[in-house]
Amino acid sequence: MRSPVVPEAVSRPTLEAVATRAGVSRATVSRVVNGGYGVRQPLAERVRRAVAELGYVPNQAARSLVTKRHDAVAVVIAEPEVRVFTDPFFALQLRGISKELTAHDNQLVLLLTEGRDDHTRVARYLAGGHVDGALVFSLHLDDPLPGLIHDAGVPTVFGGRPGWRDRTGTPMYVDTDNRGGARTAVRHLVGLGRSRIAHITGALDQTSAADRLDGYRDVMAETAGGGLDPSLVVESDFTPAGGERAMRELLGRRPDVDAVFAANDLTALGALRVLRERGLRVPEDVAVVGFDDMLPLAEQSDPPLTTVRQDIERMGRLMARLLLRGPSALHGTSVPHGASAPEVSSAPDRSSGPGGTGPAARTPGPGVILPTTLIRRASA
Amino acid sequence: MRSPVVPEAVSRPTLEAVATRAGVSRATVSRVVNGGYGVRQPLAERVRRAVAELGYVPNQAARSLVTKRHDAVAVVIAEPEVRVFTDPFFALQLRGISKELTAHDNQLVLLLTEGRDDHTRVARYLAGGHVDGALVFSLHLDDPLPGLIHDAGVPTVFGGRPGWRDRTGTPMYVDTDNRGGARTAVRHLVGLGRSRIAHITGALDQTSAADRLDGYRDVMAETAGGGLDPSLVVESDFTPAGGERAMRELLGRRPDVDAVFAANDLTALGALRVLRERGLRVPEDVAVVGFDDMLPLAEQSDPPLTTVRQDIERMGRLMARLLLRGPSALHGTSVPHGASAPEVSSAPDRSSGPGGTGPAARTPGPGVILPTTLIRRASA
Repeated sequence: MRSPVVPEAVSRPTLEAVATRAGVSRATVSRVVNGGYGVRQPLAERVRRAVAELGYVPNQAARSLVTKRHDAVAVVIAEPEVRVFTDPFFALQLRGISKELTAHDNQLVLLLTEGRDDHTRVARYLAGGHVDGALVFSLHLDDPLPGLIHDAGVPTVFGGRPGWRDRTGTPMYVDTDNRGGARTAVRHLVGLGRSRIAHITGALDQTSAADRLDGYRDVMAETAGGGLDPSLVVESDFTPAGGERAMRELLGRRPDVDAVFAANDLTALGALRVLRERGLRVPEDVAVVGFDDMLPLAEQSDPPLTTVRQDIERMGRLMARLLLRGPSALHGTSVPHGASAPEVSSAPDRSSGPGGTGPAARTPGPGVILPTTLIRRASA
Repeated sequence: MRSPVVPEAVSRPTLEAVATRAGVSRATVSRVVNGGYGVRQPLAERVRRAVAELGYVPNQAARSLVTKRHDAVAVVIAEPEVRVFTDPFFALQLRGISKELTAHDNQLVLLLTEGRDDHTRVARYLAGGHVDGALVFSLHLDDPLPGLIHDAGVPTVFGGRPGWRDRTGTPMYVDTDNRGGARTAVRHLVGLGRSRIAHITGALDQTSAADRLDGYRDVMAETAGGGLDPSLVVESDFTPAGGERAMRELLGRRPDVDAVFAANDLTALGALRVLRERGLRVPEDVAVVGFDDMLPLAEQSDPPLTTVRQDIERMGRLMARLLLRGPSALHGTSVPHGASAPEVSSAPDRSSGPGGTGPAARTPGPGVILPTTLIRRASA
């Protein structure tokens, strides 16, 4: 059952060996390996065949000197390593990024940290000439990372609308229509006849959480005639344990609550656990809506979770595509940039909407905003 | 609830600015930043204070030219990205590595891939002068990665005993006593009076799976008088779905099976699911033992899983420590290298044991082998 074959460490073929096999000069091999400019097609093909046959790996350091490219992209998730591996959101986003980078033969370089103290070290690595660009997500408002990354001088695309303005304008980003999605969720609860609708927020130093809170407020202001009840809003942090804590606090404050819009599915699962523990029926006593449509969790929860779906893997793909090919990369796909489209719209000018959130909100900038869909299951 | 503070992207301070603030020359700042050799203590302290006050980040590329160090270590997991984020084994190993690297202010650079086709690209990145070393785990026997990494010329420590011999001798590695742990598991089942003990293997192109199979064979050969029954061994792949498939096949072949030793906990969970589905009681009808002690899964399974515990996070820490400080790093800790110790023993000379598995098995080399413990719960 075990293979007896023990592979030999093979000797690495040289540029010379490729040149000899292809019957061309070293300079020709070098040019082909570095992009093939100025080499006739049949000659280039002969070289490429020799490269493939010998399994030649060009010396990257030497190649970088010529091309100034590393064919590598850093991914920075501004969360401790522990959260990166427990919140399935990050796995999904990385999946999209990995697929897109691999399709372009770019290496995904994930820079893990223990916490915010390590962000200077991350910036040092980015500034060190090891990657062609960076994809950064899960930023928090007071994180020095954006400034450090800007100074590192690498092209960057952010996942999620950045909450600050860059000296050179708002950076490129990909986001979900968090505010619109939240409105849909809360309108759905209103439509079910609920009147004491609470919101368990995400980490409010992240724009995704702030935007979902704004969406909740938009609808509550419409329906309650502008009178928002602050006792129905509990601050939390996007984790299941945070969702449990928030639900306990909410039931202590407002035992009459009849609906909860949770800022993400993990939080909603925590809330469901506490409601079950207290003997409250979902949705009869309290209806619950999440955000993300994290599968299989959202389908397998008890009861299955009504939620706002966002396409997280696609966000990852788009981030990578924007970085590799610039905004023009989005033309010719289903994702036009700066123009409305069936599936994707450009960032809305938030200054005209209610509840604007500071200077950044008035600067839509070069953002791509993906739409959301309400998924109805049993919980609301 | 939302912080109104929008952080400004700060301008990066230069070497000149540090020199001016500290009242020293640029050369002095440069020397201090690169280790401080030949600079008087009070002067060095003045420079360090200025560096801290200004938040100066030295240009890594320039620093690398002087020190030839990047303070970065690559981690390569020879599995597709999808498995890296679904098997908790990898998260635990990365946790150990991350803690150790962070303690030494080294950046963890995780190189993700979609599959084996991408290993040439990984080797290219390693050869490109972007990291000081590499930690590599989950290797499969016919993977060209070890040869490619060797040729890349970066110091490497492997997680799990490598199944091949390097031209320069067997490389450094950290492993668990897989064979001894498997023996303990199977002896436990024998002690329960079970006589038709099956084994669901891991991926047999990995030494961990091969060694666990050897441990199973050792005990079966002793107890069955040397007569091993091949119908009791089903090949699988360390995944829950693989465990389900294998358990179905096993019940088809041997409906009289009364115990299963599964190569890891995820496989055991798959087997438990199939046994429950068929109405077989665990442990009354079929006793089940796993390997890993993956928490909380092993505790929360139905019934809770008896298993062989290995300290995966510690393996990660030791791999990082070996790479950063060499074998001598292990002296003065509880982990002597090449000597027996209460907790850790050097690799046994497997040529003297039964069921040797080819040339590699006879070359223990510079390995650190961690011990295992049987954890008894309800399943066996």
